Amino acid sequence: MNTFGKSFRVSTFGESHGEGIGCVIDGVPAGLRIDEHFIASMMARRAPGRNQYATQRKESDKVQILSGVFEGLSTGTPIGMWIANNGTKSSDYANIKDIFRPGHADYTYFKKYGIRDYRGGGRSSARESAARVAAGAVAQMLLREFGISVQSGICSIGNIAGKQYDFAYALESEIYALDKECEDEQKTLIENVKREHDSIGGSALIRVDGLPVGLGEPLYHRLDGALAEALMGLNAVKAVEIGDGISSCAQQGSEHNDEMDKNGFKSNHSGGILGGISNGNTLLVKAHFKPTPSIFIPQATLDIHSQEQTCHIKGRHDPCVAVRGSVVAQAMVALVLADMLLLHATSQLCFLKKIYE
Amino acid sequence: MNTFGKSFRVSTFGESHGEGIGCVIDGVPAGLRIDEHFIASMMARRAPGRNQYATQRKESDKVQILSGVFEGLSTGTPIGMWIANNGTKSSDYANIKDIFRPGHADYTYFKKYGIRDYRGGGRSSARESAARVAAGAVAQMLLREFGISVQSGICSIGNIAGKQYDFAYALESEIYALDKECEDEQKTLIENVKREHDSIGGSALIRVDGLPVGLGEPLYHRLDGALAEALMGLNAVKAVEIGDGISSCAQQGSEHNDEMDKNGFKSNHSGGILGGISNGNTLLVKAHFKPTPSIFIPQATLDIHSQEQTCHIKGRHDPCVAVRGSVVAQAMVALVLADMLLLHATSQLCFLKKIYE
Amino acid sequence: MNTFGKSFRVSTFGESHGEGIGCVIDGVPAGLRIDEHFIASMMARRAPGRNQYATQRKESDKVQILSGVFEGLSTGTPIGMWIANNGTKSSDYANIKDIFRPGHADYTYFKKYGIRDYRGGGRSSARESAARVAAGAVAQMLLREFGISVQSGICSIGNIAGKQYDFAYALESEIYALDKECEDEQKTLIENVKREHDSIGGSALIRVDGLPVGLGEPLYHRLDGALAEALMGLNAVKAVEIGDGISSCAQQGSEHNDEMDKNGFKSNHSGGILGGISNGNTLLVKAHFKPTPSIFIPQATLDIHSQEQTCHIKGRHDPCVAVRGSVVAQAMVALVLADMLLLHATSQLCFLKKIYE
Amino acid sequence: MNTFGKSFRVSTFGESHGEGIGCVIDGVPAGLRIDEHFIASMMARRAPGRNQYATQRKESDKVQILSGVFEGLSTGTPIGMWIANNGTKSSDYANIKDIFRPGHADYTYFKKYGIRDYRGGGRSSARESAARVAAGAVAQMLLREFGISVQSGICSIGNIAGKQYDFAYALESEIYALDKECEDEQKTLIENVKREHDSIGGSALIRVDGLPVGLGEPLYHRLDGALAEALMGLNAVKAVEIGDGISSCAQQGSEHNDEMDKNGFKSNHSGGILGGISNGNTLLVKAHFKPTPSIFIPQATLDIHSQEQTCHIKGRHDPCVAVRGSVVAQAMVALVLADMLLLHATSQLCFLKKIYE
Repeated sequence: MNTFGKSFRVSTFGESHGEGIGCVIDGVPAGLRIDEHFIASMMARRAPGRNQYATQRKESDKVQILSGVFEGLSTGTPIGMWIANNGTKSSDYANIKDIFRPGHADYTYFKKYGIRDYRGGGRSSARESAARVAAGAVAQMLLREFGISVQSGICSIGNIAGKQYDFAYALESEIYALDKECEDEQKTLIENVKREHDSIGGSALIRVDGLPVGLGEPLYHRLDGALAEALMGLNAVKAVEIGDGISSCAQQGSEHNDEMDKNGFKSNHSGGILGGISNGNTLLVKAHFKPTPSIFIPQATLDIHSQEQTCHIKGRHDPCVAVRGSVVAQAMVALVLADMLLLHATSQLCFLKKIYE
Repeated sequence: MNTFGKSFRVSTFGESHGEGIGCVIDGVPAGLRIDEHFIASMMARRAPGRNQYATQRKESDKVQILSGVFEGLSTGTPIGMWIANNGTKSSDYANIKDIFRPGHADYTYFKKYGIRDYRGGGRSSARESAARVAAGAVAQMLLREFGISVQSGICSIGNIAGKQYDFAYALESEIYALDKECEDEQKTLIENVKREHDSIGGSALIRVDGLPVGLGEPLYHRLDGALAEALMGLNAVKAVEIGDGISSCAQQGSEHNDEMDKNGFKSNHSGGILGGISNGNTLLVKAHFKPTPSIFIPQATLDIHSQEQTCHIKGRHDPCVAVRGSVVAQAMVALVLADMLLLHATSQLCFLKKIYE
Repeated sequence: MNTFGKSFRVSTFGESHGEGIGCVIDGVPAGLRIDEHFIASMMARRAPGRNQYATQRKESDKVQILSGVFEGLSTGTPIGMWIANNGTKSSDYANIKDIFRPGHADYTYFKKYGIRDYRGGGRSSARESAARVAAGAVAQMLLREFGISVQSGICSIGNIAGKQYDFAYALESEIYALDKECEDEQKTLIENVKREHDSIGGSALIRVDGLPVGLGEPLYHRLDGALAEALMGLNAVKAVEIGDGISSCAQQGSEHNDEMDKNGFKSNHSGGILGGISNGNTLLVKAHFKPTPSIFIPQATLDIHSQEQTCHIKGRHDPCVAVRGSVVAQAMVALVLADMLLLHATSQLCFLKKIYE
Repeated sequence: MNTFGKSFRVSTFGESHGEGIGCVIDGVPAGLRIDEHFIASMMARRAPGRNQYATQRKESDKVQILSGVFEGLSTGTPIGMWIANNGTKSSDYANIKDIFRPGHADYTYFKKYGIRDYRGGGRSSARESAARVAAGAVAQMLLREFGISVQSGICSIGNIAGKQYDFAYALESEIYALDKECEDEQKTLIENVKREHDSIGGSALIRVDGLPVGLGEPLYHRLDGALAEALMGLNAVKAVEIGDGISSCAQQGSEHNDEMDKNGFKSNHSGGILGGISNGNTLLVKAHFKPTPSIFIPQATLDIHSQEQTCHIKGRHDPCVAVRGSVVAQAMVALVLADMLLLHATSQLCFLKKIYE
């Protein structure tokens, strides 16, 4: 179950402290120009070690294309990509070899598989998201051919929430803050929890412009459902909202419904999706991240022999996973949309006639 | 894309004002006793026309089993079920034959498929959820064999939120209220918006007890991701939360992490899922519903010829879809868990050895 | 695992002696005119009871469309179809209630599922193929929109093999014979084995004209592989050949390779497929059927208690399943091609640009 | 569409003259000991350059395990494997850069994808089968845990067909001949066609012992259908037979049906499958290969500009692909069976109870 998507399909493999992380993208239409610089730029945004707001683990995150590209163009065959691990320090995990870290997947993986790969969380590590970002970059290249752009940024850190969203500014911000006004306060909060050896949660907003009407495959591969799965399936995400999200449930129909006139929708409470299908309005989706589970405060836990232990975590960890997580969320949204773009191609007989004429 | 699940798979078909709604459940293990009374009881909870808090459309919602059951037991072959439509009044839709109802999927379906089935929303109608509830009842029968129970109820209507959750009480409540203390206030709110020809949003909580550790297939069919898709893919749902949900993003790691001792987890901020896998704790997931889009107040919209129109909706509609939606949400959670229960069976070599020995 | 196809998907349900047989076709592009007369005509070709060369079981095989069609056109939503059973005589099976019929699936279903549905083979009955033929008729309607025609007929009965193939003639023949010259001899053979209470094998040829170059999804959903699965998965089929088939293995490359000139391929040893993709030449595929397992001669077998028994089969059975099986084979080929037609739509970026421009 | 299997899933990527060939195996149960020596031994059987009956291209075919294995055991996460290309000579293809080689997939790939990767067939090359053999070796390891063995060998070269099948002997034979008696004649035939710059077809037999009753998922993932797809989807295969195969169609039911007594089946015309499910008897399946399309005799063809050309092939090619193809066929059969072994685990409620008790 390591494959994502139905038509634009991504399979990933690899562990945090193994040889590296790889992915195979199957279903990329032939003839797409593959821009390795763009892939590198997206990888750089996710990369750790950039500043004090991210883990100090150094990863080169260089993406090597193994297949599926010939003379700069996709060939229609699977695109294999490989990101070698380096800068791994398995020794950081020696003291917790047999211990389940609270808030981590250690306990559930051990119970599910009967195997303990203690090296940095193994497959469950956020390290795997490097492959998602690489694949998401290819998805974004495809979307750009159709005038669709995907952007992301941080709306809140802890309970410090932005009030206005400037995606251009987020590109420059060290914490990808969408609201310049509260960025400093957000940074200070991260610094404070870090100093306390603790961590903090946060929220990311993803915005998509240029979507045509019609993306989404009802009833069981709807656009909203697929986005929710893509984002809730990310490490640390505990809630997903589309459009007005939770606040919708306090609204009346006369407030929530988006009326239309000749210029299109007069409001966007729906966040760009109706009945699970894009309505041509701006797509807005939020992912809410819990605080990084790796903290340096001693915690009560069990070991693999069901004995009570105190967990002392070492190593290098993000004080707030939402920051780098926002980049991964952007990649996942791009993957969902690329998939939907392909799937929509067979919705109408007249579409097929255009191709086969 | 009308099939849900990977191992326990449900395909549905049918439209609001066509012959009926059907479903086919594929992957039900042979030897499961099929309790038609239980199916009927779940259907009754979703059924319209029960009281003033639901639409007055009368549907018998009788489920006919077409295949896959022999002498009361599942045979391992697909279980076909059929719910004939009756009480349909296509005439209610005559005046909006060419008009896109605000907040509905009319516009997006028309653009996606180039076809206008104006009769009550056609396939996009909440009527389809009858099939989900029928299939979810079969899923619940399977789960019960393993001591897993799924319950649901309403936590909030508009901004009136319950503070304590009593699932036994919800079974008796006309609006499936979880908190008896605020039930009357919630009812009054529904009555008020109904009187204003308007509608209101609400939230449902689903609780699962008895889950074993290990359900969920990382990394791309995780339990949390699958639940999010299942619920966000329901009509009117705009947000999904697991465990502490959105409030997680204001927490610190030292607060959110669930520590363990010999008696298990000492808290349940995670809502029963770690790394996308059930951790044996109570599963808690919330779905937030927007207000019913069908309101009786005139609204500005377009018709299929892109002309501006005023939409006057007639007919019989729920003032608050969250109420009956909570039953559908419960069914979807059951479907996800049944799927995960089957998928987990091949996670370990030693599991297979037990079967084939 | 009761769903066939990836983009044009058919799920079937129902048993031989239950309520009926149903299917759900998901993925039919919106806007296809659904011709119920054509469906009926294909059903009539598969129908039993037409003459002495087929089983005398009478089935009306009337197809009822339950969903997915509005005002004569497909809507893009799943097309449900239902064929009620009638003329069933479960009493024919009373004496073999606990007995495994040789050559049938009785033994393997019982061992696989632990359940014995003795009524005419239950789900494993050829009765299920009615749903395949109905779905295949819809697939053929789609193919016709692109100038693709699928035909079938009988090339051999026992060891009496036709030498020339006249598909127009097969339409008139009672045994769908492709070669008028040996038809009488083939009929006589069937009559003889029937008189001996025995049965006989046979072979069907399916021919497709008008295929564009490019159908088939390498490397694991190739056209040849998908056709082989579709046909070998039919009851009684024990071999599948494409193009020169088995005789290819006695050929040299200089003989087998199809050379090209400006008029296209100069020969068709490949049967219209190269590298798993259609090459624009006529597609030719053969399915070889074993003799009907239901014979009226006593046979040694076991019962469900592992006791030795003699099996005396009663009832009404085809003396040669290949005859009606050829119609089902035609339907399966159509289903494969409809699927490939849709899948090919996303092979090239320029195809998508035509749709979204 | 580069993924094979539903529960035990293999995705492959890479091209003949690119960086290498890779595969990702998803769904391997945790706790399986991964024997790299066994993988290497299977790779050696497929490897080119071993003797005069195979292509002289030298490939080291060393398999590097990238993920999914920890301390020698599968972890339940995807197993990535990589086989670097070496010994590639793209220069061999310079003169046919724009020319479609007869009998090859050049023409169909170009038409399907609009891209010409002329280097040795790119993705359509038999080189990709290295990944199948590596994955098939892992499948065989899993099968061995359940006492299931898969063997293969050559039954015929051209029209020289073996009469008896000795799988132990095939292990020693340079051409994997099953019948020692006609091996020399088969070798001489290969030598002769090679001397004539031509090629020859051949047939492989795969035999499986130790299969439990019950593998195969009717009706659309039957064991026979899946085997047929797996084998027909191999390069050069034009026919697949199970059990008596084509000769079944000349048999009468009284001859073909396998009767049973207390010792089991008294014959094996069915080849070990009834109703698409294994019956516990020896599984026998044949794949028939056309002659290698790469011959050194000039052939008429077209180029990518639709101009008539003469094709002069250079390089190093197998005179008979069936020989090495038999090893790939064995791998594919193992992949199908591993998949079916996992899928069967959820067939009965009582199986699940054993796991979850």
